[in-house]
Amino acid sequence: MKPTIPKGMRDFSPVDMTRRNFILNAICQVYRQHGYRQIETPAMENLSVLEGKYGAEGDTLLYRVLNSGKLPEGPAKIHDLSEKGLRYDLTVPFARYVVMHRNEITFPFKRYQVQPVWRADRPQKGRYREFYQCDADVIGSDSLLNEVEMVQMITEVFTALDIRTELRVNNRKVLAGLAEKLDIPDRFMELTIGLDKLEKAGLEKVMDEWRSRGIPSEALAKLEELLANSRPAGEPGGHLTEFLRGSEPGEKGIGEVQSVLDLSGREGNASLKFDLTLARGLNYYTGMIFEVKCTEKDSQFGGSLLGGGRYDDLTGVFGLPGVSGVGISFGVDRIHDVMTGLGKFDNRAPGTVTRVMFVNFGEAEAGQALGMADRMRLAGIATEVYPDAAKVKKQMSYADANAIPFVALLGSEEIKSGNVKVKDMRSGEQEDMTVQALIEKIRKDGET
Amino acid sequence: MKPTIPKGMRDFSPVDMTRRNFILNAICQVYRQHGYRQIETPAMENLSVLEGKYGAEGDTLLYRVLNSGKLPEGPAKIHDLSEKGLRYDLTVPFARYVVMHRNEITFPFKRYQVQPVWRADRPQKGRYREFYQCDADVIGSDSLLNEVEMVQMITEVFTALDIRTELRVNNRKVLAGLAEKLDIPDRFMELTIGLDKLEKAGLEKVMDEWRSRGIPSEALAKLEELLANSRPAGEPGGHLTEFLRGSEPGEKGIGEVQSVLDLSGREGNASLKFDLTLARGLNYYTGMIFEVKCTEKDSQFGGSLLGGGRYDDLTGVFGLPGVSGVGISFGVDRIHDVMTGLGKFDNRAPGTVTRVMFVNFGEAEAGQALGMADRMRLAGIATEVYPDAAKVKKQMSYADANAIPFVALLGSEEIKSGNVKVKDMRSGEQEDMTVQALIEKIRKDGET
Repeated sequence: MKPTIPKGMRDFSPVDMTRRNFILNAICQVYRQHGYRQIETPAMENLSVLEGKYGAEGDTLLYRVLNSGKLPEGPAKIHDLSEKGLRYDLTVPFARYVVMHRNEITFPFKRYQVQPVWRADRPQKGRYREFYQCDADVIGSDSLLNEVEMVQMITEVFTALDIRTELRVNNRKVLAGLAEKLDIPDRFMELTIGLDKLEKAGLEKVMDEWRSRGIPSEALAKLEELLANSRPAGEPGGHLTEFLRGSEPGEKGIGEVQSVLDLSGREGNASLKFDLTLARGLNYYTGMIFEVKCTEKDSQFGGSLLGGGRYDDLTGVFGLPGVSGVGISFGVDRIHDVMTGLGKFDNRAPGTVTRVMFVNFGEAEAGQALGMADRMRLAGIATEVYPDAAKVKKQMSYADANAIPFVALLGSEEIKSGNVKVKDMRSGEQEDMTVQALIEKIRKDGET
Repeated sequence: MKPTIPKGMRDFSPVDMTRRNFILNAICQVYRQHGYRQIETPAMENLSVLEGKYGAEGDTLLYRVLNSGKLPEGPAKIHDLSEKGLRYDLTVPFARYVVMHRNEITFPFKRYQVQPVWRADRPQKGRYREFYQCDADVIGSDSLLNEVEMVQMITEVFTALDIRTELRVNNRKVLAGLAEKLDIPDRFMELTIGLDKLEKAGLEKVMDEWRSRGIPSEALAKLEELLANSRPAGEPGGHLTEFLRGSEPGEKGIGEVQSVLDLSGREGNASLKFDLTLARGLNYYTGMIFEVKCTEKDSQFGGSLLGGGRYDDLTGVFGLPGVSGVGISFGVDRIHDVMTGLGKFDNRAPGTVTRVMFVNFGEAEAGQALGMADRMRLAGIATEVYPDAAKVKKQMSYADANAIPFVALLGSEEIKSGNVKVKDMRSGEQEDMTVQALIEKIRKDGET
């Protein structure tokens, strides 16, 4: 039988792992530097926890796990067959975690979490049925300093990853104020859904859609004017601020945006911009919202590399109301694709940390090599002894395929002399030296 | 609604994560030092890959995932409902990986893999339905040096973890030779199953069982004598070697055991012993076999901390015959329990890396603190600014609960003076200093 892998899922080979670990480590290192603490939740959650949390479409995309034991007799009903599902995101399991552990948690609670999630989505380029999420949230604090910290962390991550991006921010209160002042407070949903589509579909199409959904033409005219005036600025600007005057959420939202822009400090690879068209429509956000787009080579890398925002009530659905928080989630796969496209991985070591391999010339020589390899490792140098006394050419190909920079040859001649012959696989140069000299050579090489 | 977590599954809080990461990092660091390369496989595999690989009991313990879309009409049949299952171990997915990627792989292939697995087992103390495995295998090489490397890695891991253990080895060929020379070659299965039970059930009970299964009394008398003579020695010994003379697998097995004992070198926290009663009965092993038990405080920590061995044909079932290999798998949960029981985690930082927290005295002061915190982080020091201008007592409790060693107070007085007041949370001492002096103080503290 020829084995297969489920559609939309991936194996990660050593080279893929090196790249993904590089990205995840960069993100988690920033999280830790800001005092976020890691948790993990199980891959499976009870369906009562998952269902109804991701909208009607989300429920159809949940992976459900069959109950153990005998199947029920008669026609199958879904809730007789299954009571557990696979993690769909990290937010709902986190909310469940907070409620169940609330007596051990000291609030504000800053947590990060890096785990795969599963969605029974139609697979397509760049969209998988299993993928990692890498979230940070702080809950139990209303302070805008948390939003400022999120902006700082985002900037630090993209600086560490060496990708130029634009971090666009908006505030759902600004959008609520907008709906209020446009006199369409009951059309908030249509407004935000349309704003989210603007970039892809263009103003004309969205205007048509708004019009066809019955949003009055006066409101649309005003909206068009505001959009034309506020988009390029990167700051809320006088025009919008003026328009929102008198709307309580509108004024509050503008103030929050301004504070975040003012307090966020250090510059880096995420240029911070207010964008009135950012809406993150279908989410549960209630305050500041964030989105990151790559700005390298323009349009080649569409899609957002990060999303996030403030929510007012994470855990209310599980019986613990009033827990506000703010969180961000990096799109690890998309960051991977962007970095690959930009050639950021071209010079990175491919999935191995081995610095030197000893050629195997047979039992007696290999026995000596084992001892030397052990000494190398004690000095902190990752070392292999080729396990079989195969042809030297074959052993060299192995070193080559695994990008091992140095090969050590320890034949009977060398054993007699107390030296080892060392080949630099990149330059082809060969040199006899003591083990101690080899250790120093490799240490020095690692520093360059 | 009160949320619940599925039975037999666990949340990992920050303190748990610190401990588990400590263990996993120690193991993976050793793997990497020996040139093993990481891979990951998806949580879900097609059932055709999983079924029939773990025995009849294993099949009942597989978690099966419901197909998407509508349920089939009429009485449900399992294969109409589900075509994917959750990873049950890391070995079968690895075999599938090797077959599917055989054209990219340079053999011998040394891989490690750290991922959770799922088993619908009855939950009980120390046994979970979701748990991490942490495996290393090298495949495509028959050389005994691979077994020697496994012994070295095991020793290095338990030395790094500071747990005293016994690494017991045997060889399935020795057992095959034993069955041959006892003239019960067709009772190999009963022989190995009985040997595995010896430690728990005692010799008398196992002898009774063997007898009741019809193993002849002459064979049992000889076996009893061999067991009495060979157990305490830790080496095969003349008595056993003599007995196996003339059996081809027996002599080969003894030779392999002796080579591994001779070549394994450096001493550490895993004392290496031959043990004739080690059998690992239900496994697919064909050569050397390994098992580690904790030897601290005797019997308190039963169960093995590691298992492994040589197999002749990992991928034959997937159409790629003749791929031999050797692998080990650490029992991460059991190692965690042993280390906790021994108090090894008592002095470790609980789940946070934050070294200093700035108290929040209000908007103006916090603005200054943000800048200082940023400077600390650029110097590599994990730093938090408490997000809310809460009562100082509350902020101090937060620092305390999160085991943050230093608290920095930056009030209007300090801002004027250009200094910051620093409190050592362990000694209670307070001191005024510059930010630079604080950075140096914390660096120095980190070194002790």
